[in-house]
Order: sequence, then structure tokens, then C-alpha cells
Amino acid sequence: MTLKIGVVGTGNMGADHIRRLSTIIANAQVVAVSDVDTEQAKRMAEVAGRARVHSDGHELINDPEVQAVLIASPGFTHAEYTLGCIEVGKPVLCEKPLAPTAEECLRVLEAEQAAGTRLVQVGFMRRYDKGYRDLKQVLEAGEIGTPVQVHCRHRNASVPESYTTDMGATDSVVHEIDVTRWLLGQEIVVASIFTPRRTSRAHAHLQDPQFFLFETTEGVLIDVELFVNCQYGYDVRCELVGETGTAELPEPAGVHVRRDLRHSVPVPADWRDRFATAYDTEVQDWVDGVRSGEITGPSAWDGYATTAVAETCVRALNEGRRMEVELIARPAFYR
Amino acid sequence: MTLKIGVVGTGNMGADHIRRLSTIIANAQVVAVSDVDTEQAKRMAEVAGRARVHSDGHELINDPEVQAVLIASPGFTHAEYTLGCIEVGKPVLCEKPLAPTAEECLRVLEAEQAAGTRLVQVGFMRRYDKGYRDLKQVLEAGEIGTPVQVHCRHRNASVPESYTTDMGATDSVVHEIDVTRWLLGQEIVVASIFTPRRTSRAHAHLQDPQFFLFETTEGVLIDVELFVNCQYGYDVRCELVGETGTAELPEPAGVHVRRDLRHSVPVPADWRDRFATAYDTEVQDWVDGVRSGEITGPSAWDGYATTAVAETCVRALNEGRRMEVELIARPAFYR
Amino acid sequence: MTLKIGVVGTGNMGADHIRRLSTIIANAQVVAVSDVDTEQAKRMAEVAGRARVHSDGHELINDPEVQAVLIASPGFTHAEYTLGCIEVGKPVLCEKPLAPTAEECLRVLEAEQAAGTRLVQVGFMRRYDKGYRDLKQVLEAGEIGTPVQVHCRHRNASVPESYTTDMGATDSVVHEIDVTRWLLGQEIVVASIFTPRRTSRAHAHLQDPQFFLFETTEGVLIDVELFVNCQYGYDVRCELVGETGTAELPEPAGVHVRRDLRHSVPVPADWRDRFATAYDTEVQDWVDGVRSGEITGPSAWDGYATTAVAETCVRALNEGRRMEVELIARPAFYR
Amino acid sequence: MTLKIGVVGTGNMGADHIRRLSTIIANAQVVAVSDVDTEQAKRMAEVAGRARVHSDGHELINDPEVQAVLIASPGFTHAEYTLGCIEVGKPVLCEKPLAPTAEECLRVLEAEQAAGTRLVQVGFMRRYDKGYRDLKQVLEAGEIGTPVQVHCRHRNASVPESYTTDMGATDSVVHEIDVTRWLLGQEIVVASIFTPRRTSRAHAHLQDPQFFLFETTEGVLIDVELFVNCQYGYDVRCELVGETGTAELPEPAGVHVRRDLRHSVPVPADWRDRFATAYDTEVQDWVDGVRSGEITGPSAWDGYATTAVAETCVRALNEGRRMEVELIARPAFYR
Repeated sequence: MTLKIGVVGTGNMGADHIRRLSTIIANAQVVAVSDVDTEQAKRMAEVAGRARVHSDGHELINDPEVQAVLIASPGFTHAEYTLGCIEVGKPVLCEKPLAPTAEECLRVLEAEQAAGTRLVQVGFMRRYDKGYRDLKQVLEAGEIGTPVQVHCRHRNASVPESYTTDMGATDSVVHEIDVTRWLLGQEIVVASIFTPRRTSRAHAHLQDPQFFLFETTEGVLIDVELFVNCQYGYDVRCELVGETGTAELPEPAGVHVRRDLRHSVPVPADWRDRFATAYDTEVQDWVDGVRSGEITGPSAWDGYATTAVAETCVRALNEGRRMEVELIARPAFYR
Repeated sequence: MTLKIGVVGTGNMGADHIRRLSTIIANAQVVAVSDVDTEQAKRMAEVAGRARVHSDGHELINDPEVQAVLIASPGFTHAEYTLGCIEVGKPVLCEKPLAPTAEECLRVLEAEQAAGTRLVQVGFMRRYDKGYRDLKQVLEAGEIGTPVQVHCRHRNASVPESYTTDMGATDSVVHEIDVTRWLLGQEIVVASIFTPRRTSRAHAHLQDPQFFLFETTEGVLIDVELFVNCQYGYDVRCELVGETGTAELPEPAGVHVRRDLRHSVPVPADWRDRFATAYDTEVQDWVDGVRSGEITGPSAWDGYATTAVAETCVRALNEGRRMEVELIARPAFYR
Repeated sequence: MTLKIGVVGTGNMGADHIRRLSTIIANAQVVAVSDVDTEQAKRMAEVAGRARVHSDGHELINDPEVQAVLIASPGFTHAEYTLGCIEVGKPVLCEKPLAPTAEECLRVLEAEQAAGTRLVQVGFMRRYDKGYRDLKQVLEAGEIGTPVQVHCRHRNASVPESYTTDMGATDSVVHEIDVTRWLLGQEIVVASIFTPRRTSRAHAHLQDPQFFLFETTEGVLIDVELFVNCQYGYDVRCELVGETGTAELPEPAGVHVRRDLRHSVPVPADWRDRFATAYDTEVQDWVDGVRSGEITGPSAWDGYATTAVAETCVRALNEGRRMEVELIARPAFYR
Repeated sequence: MTLKIGVVGTGNMGADHIRRLSTIIANAQVVAVSDVDTEQAKRMAEVAGRARVHSDGHELINDPEVQAVLIASPGFTHAEYTLGCIEVGKPVLCEKPLAPTAEECLRVLEAEQAAGTRLVQVGFMRRYDKGYRDLKQVLEAGEIGTPVQVHCRHRNASVPESYTTDMGATDSVVHEIDVTRWLLGQEIVVASIFTPRRTSRAHAHLQDPQFFLFETTEGVLIDVELFVNCQYGYDVRCELVGETGTAELPEPAGVHVRRDLRHSVPVPADWRDRFATAYDTEVQDWVDGVRSGEITGPSAWDGYATTAVAETCVRALNEGRRMEVELIARPAFYR
């Protein structure tokens, strides 16, 4: 049977998900949308076909036709809406972050545990990228031995003026935090940040690039270069270094062109270009999981641990020193 | 609205399409299946959900609930079923070939023209592969100038004993014939075949590899190495040579592994592995096209021209000489 | 002891060799040069240090201080000077071709056999390119099984107006003829030429590109795309296809640059850029061989067989048909 | 005229240089060798031809036939022999390090300044690797803008048991210290070391891998992963990140082989394999420079600054904190 979905938030991300659910995802239908901007909500309701428009997310969540909820509203509202879904027992795919603070994430963990059943998935789409999945498979097949280091690059051509230094950790590197935790099956417990020479291409208020060093429970050292005004394109890289070999995330396949004394392939322009298929796979997998009663994507625990590391990064940067991440013991429910 | 589809043929290819339509394609539903092997048809009807089972393809085509037909039965039945679809005015996606002989293809062309509306799409899925599409875009953007040559490789790890020398052209190279016609927007009008030293890894009856040389209406020279017992994997390559540059089909992205003094990436094992996404895109595009009333995929003309070239290849090989392809003038209907 | 060398011909090629022998090659010294342009010869004598200038090549060959001769004069003079060296028993490195006609080459073969000792090396430098050597090693180690096909590309950015269609075979593809013979250890016995659509970037008199198909004694099929006005750079490629795998000539290593939405490496501008190190290795190897009394480079037989195939190519192109190469039986002296 | 060279030290490194000077380098001749192991010295004297054997390095330095000296004895003797060369005014190529301590290096700086002419070159051969030179050219051509970061990898398949944790900085990373200083034209002024999980493949006493972070005078952040028991091969990488693009050191060109479902290229086994040509170029350049009176390679200042950074690394690792490098002001003589 087709899964009837309500989408909270119809801005860029929500609009993209509505289009995706309507034209690419099998066995799903958007039956309701909500947004504080009701005009935008109405436009997206038409794209979705015959979807109902709610002016309030909680109203949508309580709409009896809605079987599952996708939250794409601004980050500070995520925890509240997710708690609303848990209250009525509806599965929810919440865009990252689960919440901007670890404290709020903990409230979601508690509510979900009280509900006694897994309802929450957090939208870390990189776990659905074919490249990262293949990378995990290579690691788990033992092809490179026990991992000792991970090297990551996260580069955007540019960011808007609204992007702040703290968002380096909370908005961007949060993807590396989640995906390396998932690749390694280890928690990140220490963070240090280094600040290289600032590029002259960033807005004056922004420290760009930033260099993150993470240490895991088992001593793996993860470094992440974040450079959000690198000018040349969107470039995400990841190299796992094991005791007997290394494995690197594939770069996107592109046509090889030889002209004007150069042999070249294209670099993606932005994350949409790079991760479009990962989003499709993520949402299809969530729809399939909800329909079959088995949600296997990033959990509320992942949402919490990731936010906790990002928070620590902000403190480590401000205090200029290596800092430990404070994590609660992982509840049995999330093992 | 969901498109209600009947699938004729539930063997390997048909089963794959039924699974695809049921779990990956948006806005489509398999409502009927047919096969001479009714047990297999029943099994696949269950995979599809609540699909009806017909023992005869024509019965399925005439099933009033069926809005569109996908033909995946053996090649020699394709023309007959396609003609059946045209007769009742239902859109049809016919797996390649449209028919084993140019003559039968011509009957389909005539019927479709008489019907006065485009109903037939032929299943050349490579046109839906992202790599080939990017290649066409590079060419059409003028990045490499006017094309003068195309180099293709078509390699399979191995083929079953039932694979004959003629099938080199009719089953395998037929993909290169279609996709280079499409890339260039030109017809192939001459074919020559060279036979290199036979590999000892092929069955005794089989000439493997074969080397095809095609000449187009505008003088572009296309060479295709076909090697269907190359042992090492499935490998499809295509290089366009233009007056100012060259463009190559991307190889599938894979994890880069360094171990044991080698730096390596995986080679796909077979065409399923290599072209799975292309099939998904092809079928979604067809479903979208049927729903919106605009079919834009490979036409019956493409099915005809491709079969005509393949037939000429078989003759050129048997007679050991360069041969011209006999094509009718392209009807205005197909321009 | 230092080998005392005389260089016949001080044009582009000769000047390059004189500079090489004076500044890069160990245990060699240019003691004499000759050229019909005596002014140029004098300039190059100074580059070489204290070299004597002869106005005539035969005079240089007979100069008692000259222990070995490098011939870099125009091709039509090669056989004559090589015969001169044989007459006085001096080792000679003759730039390719050994002679423009197979007939003249045969005279050299006879003279060298009569002399009873190997004196002649022909300047096919590709055999000294690290890439080609590694390729041969991979083949001989059995990594790809018995070879069945070879695919070659030979592309120049552009050629001067003096370059004629026949020179495609005699000046350019002659390198592929020699190097594939050497890689395979087989003679080429049949040639066919195809003429793709002409590029608009070539001079009006020139058929460019040309497509060569060679068949060897053991049935290996070799194709060579020659495209001497490809505009984008100098590009030489070679893929060996064996029964169990394939091996490709490495492209020259270059810095990977990412900028402006492209990831690119440089393409060499011309053959000097691409094969400079191969020339160095060739000449050092020849000097070492002469000093130790063991010349192992391309022999007069290779010079003859290569010219014979090139001559056949010119006829095959003019007559528009597949032609057999007429070769004498290989004398025991050259086995 | 041929440069007459004395080689101090005929162990692995010295033997390699003697062979190089005798068979590959133009215009050079080994006329004297010395080693505490006189039997080994005699063997190498024969390889060199008619070289004299000295039992003592200072005796060799004072040998009137010796015009220039190459020092390849153990590191702790380097400063002493270099000072000996300065005393008699003979040009010297001293293998790295110039000396194991910054203090000893300073004595060499003082002596050379007192001598008033540049006599010392330190054997940092990476500056002569074509890849690094191309990288520097890309940077200096402005292709990637002002540099902000550098990422380096230095991996060996394995090291002998005698290799200690400190040697990570003083023997291995010293190459990255020199070559990034040269690439950037900046001094390294701060060092931090991180210690990832230890590989189980190293000897128990060894911290392997190590992760170095350097900061330059202009704020560029350089990270170096050192992993000397990586098992899979010898792998040196370097990526420059500029304000508008990135540039990566080319990996060595190798034959592309496709077999057994993998597409692979070889990884070098060790540094000899990887940097053989760089050593050749280094020594030829030094010989040419001595002959023409212009030495342009790594200076005594480079030897000093590099040792000073390596010493700081050892302290930073032992004290577990970020440490500043203490450097004297650069004397005008070395600008």
C-alpha cells in the first residue's frame, strides 16, 4: 500500500523532498504539507497533487490521513515536531540536525524510549550514497585491515554571508561526524580545531578554512579539512587508512574531456549535484522501512551524538584547545 | 494517477522489470503479467502485489485495466505483441530488439504510422545511462568540435554456450549501433567486420573477439571491439573524437583501494551491475512520458535502423567484405 | 673509457642529440659533426666542446678519432651513411627510418651480414620509454594472457603544411609498427587503411585522420588511429588486449589541478615533451652497448620490416584495399 | 671538463651514488672513495673504475685530485666532513641531514659564511622530482591562488626494527619539512604531533602512524601523515590547497591492468623505486652547477632550518604539546 506522508516545511529542502516523493519514490504519496509561509505551502501542495495544507506543523502531524512525517522546517523546530510525532506514534524522518543542542536531543531520546518503539530517523543522507556504502563494505570485508586514521575534505565553492564560523561544525562538518561514526562503528570522544591562514575569498567574519581533528573511542584519528569558499566546486573526499591498506571514497564519475592541452573531468557545483541520488535512496529506504515496519537509518542516538560532537567543536574552537566530548552512556534501546 | 501496466514475459528480464516497477518506479503499478510458463507468471504476480495472470500476451494486451504494456518475452515474439498494442492504441515499451529482422520492423513502422500516433518505445537503455547522456551533452555543447571518429569496447567476462557468432552483432553490438546513432544523430550506412585471433577461452563454435567498423552518413568512422569472453569483467567504453578534442564515457565510480602493491578500483561483473540505474531511469522516463502523453525514448524507427545494421553485419561477416546497409527513407512521421 | 662519437646531421634532431650527448649521457663525447650547412655544423661543434667539423658525412665516418656514428641527417641519406659505417666497421645509431624503401633497407641487411657482426641500431626510441617497457613486462609476465588485439592512438596537435597523407604511414605510424612488432614479438603481414571524415583543421591536401588495421603472423589485430591535427595536444596510447586481461600504456604523470569546476591534468604539447626521457635512455643504452660490445636495440631487420609495412600501407591506401606485406624470410643473423 | 669527485661513505647510499656517477651522470668521474670498511671501499673503487681508496674521509677531502666531494657516510659524521670541505674550499653535496642537531648545523652556516662563498648543497632530492617541480610551477603560475593548506602523506611498506619513534621526524618527515618549505617559500615555525591508534604491524617500541601539524610564517597549515608500516607499498602524496584551487603531486605513472574484476596500477615498493630519477637529476644538477660555478640546490640554511623543525617535533611529541620552532634570523648570505 502507498504510504501517506505529511511534510513539515516547504522551503528549499522541503520542496525538494515533495518533488522527490511525488515523482521518484515508489509507494509514497504526499497527502499534507505545512509551512508558516502558507502561500509557499499551497504551491507545493499542488506539485504534490491533492495534498492538504496545514498552517501548523503539529496540526499536520495530527492529521489522521498522515501515516508518516518528513520534517524539513528550520533546525530549531526539529526537536519539537519530532516529539510531536513520537507522541502520536507516527514514524518521522527528521532532516539534520535532530536538534541544535545535545540537551534537546536527549529529550527526544527519552521520549522515544518511553514510547518503546523506534520511530525517529535523522536525515544524514551520506550513509545512502553509493560511494560511502561501498567504502563501508570494503572496510567490513577486511580489505584494508583495522582502521587507524581517516582523512576527510569538505569543500564548497562558496557560502552566503549568513554562514558563520560556528556553522562550520554544526552545519557542515556534522556530515563528516555522522558518516565517520557510521563507517567506523565508533564514537568520537575528543575534538581539536586548527585555524589555517584565512582565505581572502570569504566574508570578513568567517574563519575559513578550518581543520578538525577527532579522536574516537578506539583511538582512530580523523581529520577534516573544511573549506567553504574554495571557489572551484563542491568536493567531498574520505580516505580510510587501515593497517594493511587504504580505501578512498570514489569521486563522481564524469566524462573525460581532452582539449586545449588538458585532460579533465567535471567537479560538481554543489551538494545537490553531488548527493541527489543519495537523497533519493534515503527517502525510498525510509518509505520501504516504514511500510515494512523496520526503520534502519540513522537513529535519534546518532542525532544526539553528532550534535554533541558539533557542540564540543564550537567550544574547542572558542577556547583554543583540545576538548573531550561529553556523551551519556548509550542506552540499550539504541544498541 | 498511477499508470497500470501489463508485463508480457516474466523470465529474467521481465522479472527484473516487475520488481523495478513495484519497488523503485513512482506512479506505476503492475496490474497484469503473462508468460507461457504460468507458474513463473504466478510467482511474479505475487511479487507485483495483486496482478492478474494471463497465459497469453494478446489477452494481457486486451485486458481493459492495462493502460500500457512492457514486452519482455523472447525476441522473436516482440513484433507480434507490439503490433497487438498498436492495434488497441496502448503505449508499449518493447525490450530490444524490436524484431530480429528489418522486414518485421518495417511492419511495425507501418502500423504505427497508420495509427497516426507514437505508441512504441524500444528498450535501448544505454541512452538513459548518466554517462552516455553526459557524453551527448559534451558533444552537443561543442566542447570537442565536429565528431570524426568513435571508438567503442564491449566486453563481457563470458557468455553461455548458446551464444553464437551472429549474436555478436544482433544481441551485443546492437547496443553500440543504437547508442552511437543517437550520440551522433547520424545513420550507419556501411559495415565491415574483422576477426582477430580467437581467444582460447571461448566455446569452439564462437568467433571471439570480433572487430566492427561502421561508417555513417556523414563519414564518421565507428569501431567496436566486441569481446564476450574477456574473463576480467564487464567493460563498456566509448570515446568520441572530435575536430578539437575527445570525450570518453566515464567508467563506473568505485572505491579506490591500495593494498599489496596495487592501487585498484573494481570492474563491474556484468551488465546488470553496470546498467541497473539506466534501466530504472529508462522505465521511470517511459512511465512519466506515457502519463504526460509524450514518449521521447528510442522509437520504432530506431528499432528498425538498428536491426537493419545488425543484419548487414551478419552478412558482412559471412561474405568477408565491407557491405552497405539498405535502409528505407526515413518517414516524416519519425523525424 | 669515454666513447668518441661523430654526429652526421646537425638539424633539429641532430642538434638535440649533440646537446644530449654533451650534457646528459655518461661516458660519451661528441668529437666530430657534419652537415651540408657548415655554419650550423660549426655552431653545434661549439655546443659539443672541441668537436671537429666535416662538410661531408663520409669524411666524418672515416675520421680515425670517431669510434661510433649517430646519423641524424635527412631520411633519404640514411642507408648510404649506414653502409659507410658498416664498410669501416663502426657502430652506428641511425635515426628512423633506416631507409625510405624496403629495397634500400635490404642492401643494409646484406652489408651487415657480410660484415658478420652487428653494427646497426635504428632509432626507434619508443622501445626505451618506461611506459612501453613496463607494458612489455606485464605482457611477458603473463598478467593478461595471450594477446589477441592491440589498440593504438597517435595524435599530434598539428603538422606543418609539408606533411603529406603518405607520411601518415612512413613518418608517424612507423612508430606504432615498430613498437607493436616489438611488444608482440610478431611480424605484421597484412595492412588495411580506412579514411574517416576529414577534419576541417587539416590542410586541404591531407587525409586526416587515418585508421590503420594490421594483422600479424599469429592473427593479432592491431588498430591505429592516426590524427595529426587533433588540436588538443600530443597523445599516444596503446592498449594490449589479452585472453584474460588488458594492459594500457600509462599516460604521462602530471599535476592534478582542481579549479573552475574542472579536475584536470596536462596533456603533452608534442613528442619532445612526451618522449624526451626515452631518447635519453635510448642513447645511453646505445653508448653502454657499444662500449661493452653488445648492441641490443632495434636492428637493421627491424628497420627493414618496419619500412616494408609502411610501404604496404601507402599502397593499401592508394588502392583502397587490404594488402599483404611482402617480407623476405628473416635471416638467421637477425634471430 | 669532467668533474673529479670523491665519495665519502660507500654503504648503501654511497654505493648507489658511485654507480650513478659512473654510469648515468655526464661529465663526472669518481676519482676517490673512502669508508671505515676498507674492503667495501675497495669494491666500490672498482665499480667506479680507477678510483683511489682512502681509509679516512678527511684524507679524501684533502686529496689534491678531488675537485668536489659527495658525503654519504652516517649522519653524525656529516657536519664534520662538510666543515672539512669548507676548510679546503671544495664544493660538497652532503646527504641529508646536514647534521642531527641544529647546533651543529649552525657551525656549518658560520664556516660557510666565513669562507664567503657557497660550497654546501644538502641532499634533499625531492626538490628534483619532476612531480614536485611541476607542483611548484603550478603554484607559482598562480593557477590555484595563495596557498592556505598543504596535506602530505608519507608511507613506507615497513621499516626495520632499528627505526625509532623519533626517526619519524628526523629521518622521514624531514623530507616533507624541506619540500613544503621550498614549495611555499616559507619557514615552519610551529609543530604539533598527534598519535593515532598504533598499528599492530609495527614493532612494539614504535608509535606508528604519527600525524604532524606544522604552521608557517604566513599561517599556512601543513599536515603530514607518517605511516611507516602501511604494508601496501611506498606512497608519497602532497596536495596544495590554494584560495582558488588545489594541486596534487602526480602519482608515478604505471601500466593500467584490468584482470580479475579489478582495474589497477602498481604502487612503488620503496623510495628507491619512487625517487631514482630524482636522485639522478639532483646529482647531474649538482655536477653541472659545480662545473659552471653556480650551486642552486638546497643550502646549508635549508639543512639547518629542516633539522631545527625536526628537533622541535621530537620535543613536541615527548611533551605532548604544540611547540614553537626556535630559528635564528636568516643571514643575508642565505637570502
